[in-house]
Amino acid sequence: MPAPSLITLTTDFGTGSPYIAQMKGVILTLCRDVDLIDITHAIGPQNIREGAVVLADTTPYFPPGAIHVAVVDPGVGTARRLIYAEIREQRYVAPDNGLLSFLIRHKPPRRIVAIENGAFWRTKPSNTFHGRDILAPVAAHLALGVDPVQLGPALDTCVMLDAALPQKSRKGVRGEVLYVDSFGNLITNLTRDDFSDLGDMARLTVECAGRAIRGLIPTYGAAIPGELVALLDSQGRLEIAVSGGHAASELAVGMGQAVLVTANL
Amino acid sequence: MPAPSLITLTTDFGTGSPYIAQMKGVILTLCRDVDLIDITHAIGPQNIREGAVVLADTTPYFPPGAIHVAVVDPGVGTARRLIYAEIREQRYVAPDNGLLSFLIRHKPPRRIVAIENGAFWRTKPSNTFHGRDILAPVAAHLALGVDPVQLGPALDTCVMLDAALPQKSRKGVRGEVLYVDSFGNLITNLTRDDFSDLGDMARLTVECAGRAIRGLIPTYGAAIPGELVALLDSQGRLEIAVSGGHAASELAVGMGQAVLVTANL
Amino acid sequence: MPAPSLITLTTDFGTGSPYIAQMKGVILTLCRDVDLIDITHAIGPQNIREGAVVLADTTPYFPPGAIHVAVVDPGVGTARRLIYAEIREQRYVAPDNGLLSFLIRHKPPRRIVAIENGAFWRTKPSNTFHGRDILAPVAAHLALGVDPVQLGPALDTCVMLDAALPQKSRKGVRGEVLYVDSFGNLITNLTRDDFSDLGDMARLTVECAGRAIRGLIPTYGAAIPGELVALLDSQGRLEIAVSGGHAASELAVGMGQAVLVTANL
Repeated sequence: MPAPSLITLTTDFGTGSPYIAQMKGVILTLCRDVDLIDITHAIGPQNIREGAVVLADTTPYFPPGAIHVAVVDPGVGTARRLIYAEIREQRYVAPDNGLLSFLIRHKPPRRIVAIENGAFWRTKPSNTFHGRDILAPVAAHLALGVDPVQLGPALDTCVMLDAALPQKSRKGVRGEVLYVDSFGNLITNLTRDDFSDLGDMARLTVECAGRAIRGLIPTYGAAIPGELVALLDSQGRLEIAVSGGHAASELAVGMGQAVLVTANL
Repeated sequence: MPAPSLITLTTDFGTGSPYIAQMKGVILTLCRDVDLIDITHAIGPQNIREGAVVLADTTPYFPPGAIHVAVVDPGVGTARRLIYAEIREQRYVAPDNGLLSFLIRHKPPRRIVAIENGAFWRTKPSNTFHGRDILAPVAAHLALGVDPVQLGPALDTCVMLDAALPQKSRKGVRGEVLYVDSFGNLITNLTRDDFSDLGDMARLTVECAGRAIRGLIPTYGAAIPGELVALLDSQGRLEIAVSGGHAASELAVGMGQAVLVTANL
Repeated sequence: MPAPSLITLTTDFGTGSPYIAQMKGVILTLCRDVDLIDITHAIGPQNIREGAVVLADTTPYFPPGAIHVAVVDPGVGTARRLIYAEIREQRYVAPDNGLLSFLIRHKPPRRIVAIENGAFWRTKPSNTFHGRDILAPVAAHLALGVDPVQLGPALDTCVMLDAALPQKSRKGVRGEVLYVDSFGNLITNLTRDDFSDLGDMARLTVECAGRAIRGLIPTYGAAIPGELVALLDSQGRLEIAVSGGHAASELAVGMGQAVLVTANL
């Protein structure tokens, strides 16, 4: 007996929103033999960029073949497309609004399909909740073994968000805060590779919001309580944290804040 | 092999409350072959009306035979009854305090049973947590195939909340805010049928908290950012929203606020 | 066919943190046939004591053999150990920082093992997220049937938190607030046994933060709305509550606040 299909959900509905359970009910009514996993429902309302970061950070940890349903969908009911995409070994259903950008930047999709075939939708889908009325039943049908070619026509591309790419200069490298995690840590778009030519990590300077941090530490535990520190996060990205505190509040910064890494003189 | 039973949980314990996991542990200890789904644990503390709205909005999306456990129970430990009810194809266990009202208003229950047979409870149930000590084990026993007639005597009726029914007048129709969703959208008790005699939806006026909205729009995407709009929600009810904003905060209103729909002159 | 293994997660990541889903993805990639249950992710950041209370309060409700993964880990990346422990019929993987203290105080562990064998970890574990890179894959391997002796060397003891034991005096018994639940109720470290020699519960006085409560009531429903009351909670501990309100806010107290129980004169 094969393992049941795995379907994950990522939305901006807010933790505890009953809309999440409506989607789960729709899926389970069509396909009872499925495991449902919540990635998060705490994406900022209509914050496509945050959703794109979270999808790129979490879905690659899932088993091959997992179906990821993403609903951050300010354009619901307008002409924006819904898409099915295969990226690495994972499958995605989402609005075509850039939610898959950061996944695709790392790896071109194996396939993109426009979701247009109403045969796999709920009858009479609402104008305001395509997550429940189109994406959830499409995911359930995929779990039942429907071939993605049946969903609609193949596409060559999908909507991509502007990329904030690190900028190298004579002084060092400039990046930005990509994401604030639930501890208030600032996750940046800079990885070790971006500043490897600047020398020993313990001798770098990280500047953010007028504050300068001298040297990266190897782990949280190496900080003095209350200290503002920089380190590599669990995905290899530069992170700025306050030991036992909340860096985003203390520095009063958020997503998009500039971060500069330079070699110490 | 039949699918495992499905048990959902709806409580006012607060997301992250360990009491939820206590209930799940009790269920899984009695019946390992069950799928557990959280509907929400973010019902306002002891807010029976909100719980009743959420149960009516979400549980009909679940597969026939699902067992829904609802715990919003300010009367725990007093003489209030606990009940089992069958409504449409769904099964419910809940305190008899009106939690099932909005489900029952749409469809009379097929059966109501008083939960009185302690054989299906935890031994020595506490006075303060019947959700864990009575409702959770009863749900597990139902999942195991116990016949509901064994739970206790049949009942003819259960407690019903006062209904806020739309009031028609010469001017139009008056309803109220039934629910504020996690985006701050105001969901009302008015459906398309309630104002179908007032003519074209694009030419109606919706009044709420001293603000007048001219015409319903077809979907969120048709609004200007920041605009106060009215539209039909994904269940066909009149909804008041601020595009990209939080209508409940902006209008400073909540559950129970009056809403008036009139034909434009 | 045996039931799939059960793995629970208890963390301080914050509800909705995508780090939770990363752990689940790692587990499911190694062991697809597992049921995942969230105990809570709302432990206060790095609050080991709160985590220890929650684990002791909830995990005993789970079926024998359940695997409980606990990640409240301010020392991640330092020399602190990670441990596997068997307590009663339950299995735990956690940092060795006192998280299992309140479980162990009630019942000595049957076995403790230091988690040192990297064969069961993700390759190249990060310095900052051992929950995902070590504890999650270890739990998955245990679910697959790996013998705990393979994880590392046996230990005699693990780190224990200071115990706040009730202090008896001539006047009565002094304890403290162990935990504030999501309703704002104050759960104390005093049980019925601690004040059984003080006579009838209805005639005791409970003092907390300068307020005196006369007599324990049998259940919430026996209180006048807004009244400050004391009662035995669903685990038999003394609890201080405000009927329909939030005792912690009203008394402006939290974990550690002294509570005195005396016999009425």
